Amino acid sequence: MALSPDHRADVGRFWTTIEASGRIGEGRPGGLSRLTLSDSDREIRDRFVGWCEEAGLSVEVDELGSIFGRREGTEPDLPPVMMGSHLDTQVNGGRFDGIAGVLGGLEVMRSLNDAGHVTRRPLVVVDWTNEEGARYSPPMVASGAFVGRYEADWVHGLTDRDGLRFGEELERIGYKGARPARGGPVDAYFELHIEQGPILDAEGRQVGVVTGGYPSHGMRARFDGQTAHTGPTPMDLRHNALIAGARWLTAVDDIGWDFAVHDGKATGAQLTAWPNIAGRLSDYAQAICDVRHPDPITARVMAEKMRRALHEAAARAGCTATIEDEWSWGGDIFDAELIALVREEAVRQGWNWREIKSQAGHDAYHMALHCPSTMIFTPCKGGITHNNNESCEKEDFEAGLNMLLHAVVKRADRA
Amino acid sequence: MALSPDHRADVGRFWTTIEASGRIGEGRPGGLSRLTLSDSDREIRDRFVGWCEEAGLSVEVDELGSIFGRREGTEPDLPPVMMGSHLDTQVNGGRFDGIAGVLGGLEVMRSLNDAGHVTRRPLVVVDWTNEEGARYSPPMVASGAFVGRYEADWVHGLTDRDGLRFGEELERIGYKGARPARGGPVDAYFELHIEQGPILDAEGRQVGVVTGGYPSHGMRARFDGQTAHTGPTPMDLRHNALIAGARWLTAVDDIGWDFAVHDGKATGAQLTAWPNIAGRLSDYAQAICDVRHPDPITARVMAEKMRRALHEAAARAGCTATIEDEWSWGGDIFDAELIALVREEAVRQGWNWREIKSQAGHDAYHMALHCPSTMIFTPCKGGITHNNNESCEKEDFEAGLNMLLHAVVKRADRA
Repeated sequence: MALSPDHRADVGRFWTTIEASGRIGEGRPGGLSRLTLSDSDREIRDRFVGWCEEAGLSVEVDELGSIFGRREGTEPDLPPVMMGSHLDTQVNGGRFDGIAGVLGGLEVMRSLNDAGHVTRRPLVVVDWTNEEGARYSPPMVASGAFVGRYEADWVHGLTDRDGLRFGEELERIGYKGARPARGGPVDAYFELHIEQGPILDAEGRQVGVVTGGYPSHGMRARFDGQTAHTGPTPMDLRHNALIAGARWLTAVDDIGWDFAVHDGKATGAQLTAWPNIAGRLSDYAQAICDVRHPDPITARVMAEKMRRALHEAAARAGCTATIEDEWSWGGDIFDAELIALVREEAVRQGWNWREIKSQAGHDAYHMALHCPSTMIFTPCKGGITHNNNESCEKEDFEAGLNMLLHAVVKRADRA
Repeated sequence: MALSPDHRADVGRFWTTIEASGRIGEGRPGGLSRLTLSDSDREIRDRFVGWCEEAGLSVEVDELGSIFGRREGTEPDLPPVMMGSHLDTQVNGGRFDGIAGVLGGLEVMRSLNDAGHVTRRPLVVVDWTNEEGARYSPPMVASGAFVGRYEADWVHGLTDRDGLRFGEELERIGYKGARPARGGPVDAYFELHIEQGPILDAEGRQVGVVTGGYPSHGMRARFDGQTAHTGPTPMDLRHNALIAGARWLTAVDDIGWDFAVHDGKATGAQLTAWPNIAGRLSDYAQAICDVRHPDPITARVMAEKMRRALHEAAARAGCTATIEDEWSWGGDIFDAELIALVREEAVRQGWNWREIKSQAGHDAYHMALHCPSTMIFTPCKGGITHNNNESCEKEDFEAGLNMLLHAVVKRADRA
């Protein structure tokens, strides 16, 4: 049976599912603390698998624990259209970040069941393991393995702060599946996600058509100095790695302010030092910083300033700096045809929409390396996220869910 | 039998004892990692008690674990003359810091046994528990309790980073004694210590007559902000407590350089933040900074700059700052008569000496609140300390040990 262009997703049903998820792994009031591969991650996975099966989907789990719920198409041999995001959260996370994309994909499946419509290509909804990177670094690691950026064995060997290995924790919660982490052909990937920024909310928009990501450059660096007693050591004989790190973070924050007028951002996100105690100068520090800007060339300029600030900070503290890791993402990575398809749905359905760029990393960034991909953003109050104050209303998802539904079906049904 | 003015301490025996200590709780090559109330602390305590008993001293342990070895005087009811320091070290500490003062006091006892001289007043050598503060904050806590600054019950309740309580660890290693932590009358306190600074070594001096301490002002502050996603949050909506902390440490380091020309120092020694991970702005940070300057008024000016920098750093990061603890020490705290006595011995024995101020905190700072006190400094290579590269030769102690011996005896024998 053909899908009526006026068919609507059941936002009430979607919201009830979100609320059920919001009771698993509760953190600070109103928020979630559902770290990847934890007991509460197992619990939401069990629920998600149950929901998939109730919706008639066939479920597969890959060797990194990502869960794939498949709704067969009339031509099962064609590459599937995928939707999804992640069900894990930060230590102090919200109830919508990632979760809305997985449960939104599930709602598309349920809506098509209501309509009795079978798409030409198969549809798959996916929950990617460890998107957040809050427990195991790097983030988005399972989608990265899907597209061939990481090897599954390497991911299994990652350890958290307590020394627990990814592979063992995955087995412990019963989600080490048989399906290879490396994915096969995919026709297209759609990711619905809360904006995690203040723009849609401030402008009163119902939805954002994502056209790309802010180019972002990050680095993790270590500083080496020399321990000494704080009291008697003259300033010019000091090699305090903690000060090298503090100076770098301060300089990077200054870079952010210098470029803030055109929406540039620079972040000092992490600084650890050893021994980091009163009475001692530290001989070791490690720090993570990144810069983001909507314009790719400006983002590169900011990254170069961040790099020079690193060595200047080390020099001023009498230490050496070593870049241990560097990464870049974002830019015009999403597929023009998919963006146009989403935009057409926004216009056809009559929502108050705007084009917008993603400022955070998402699994869609990895998938864009593998197949045509794009994202749809829904508003969140004040842009607050990664925080128990992350807040959305049921109505915030109405536009996004219905655009996802019809864009996915059009893509899956095309000749 | 009267002590000959030419009697010499046995530096070789002292050095052998230092070497025995240097094999207990070995850390990085050449250094010690002998944290207070650890198994290796128990081991050196057992050895020290044995050495005291071999020297005929009567040993008492107080309720905070400080060990007192007493050599009776001809007038046992007079307040004793005390010598001592500490046998605990930093995580990456040296073999001499503190240790030379305790084992130097022991050598004085042994030398008097050799000479067959009994002083008029009793002599006591003390090992103070937890001088370093590397495991339990604050440092110098047992000497502080001796002089009434801290209550023993409060000290017993201190916890280390693993949540282990001071009182329970003290019982575990068998050094919770019966003697009250609060001390009785003391005639005088002498502390021999390595300089922990570069001055004596650079000038080729054999010994330093300590005339006081650099006035020092420190504070521990916390910063409160708001967690948020690093990517989408505009600079002007950020409340990153880690950046508040980094800015404070940077500003305090700048203050140190501004006053370095007259030997001022400012130190950012500790910075911790939560959640302190990539992808998140931190909502909490804690930092410890201090300033030191030989001139008391300049030290106060530096402290005031440090305080203003705290609130400026917090404001620039959109956070609030709260001072959780403040402390001051140093200045002209030592006793003029004792300083003169030590200086006379330096002149009489013909050493290459100079007057010097202490730049680190010592148990003698507490004892100076209780009785006439002073210190004697011995050279250490390059001033390097709190580090396994802390280095002294046997000869570096010859002047200090012999000045300690004769100054203590003159003080104890005076009418």
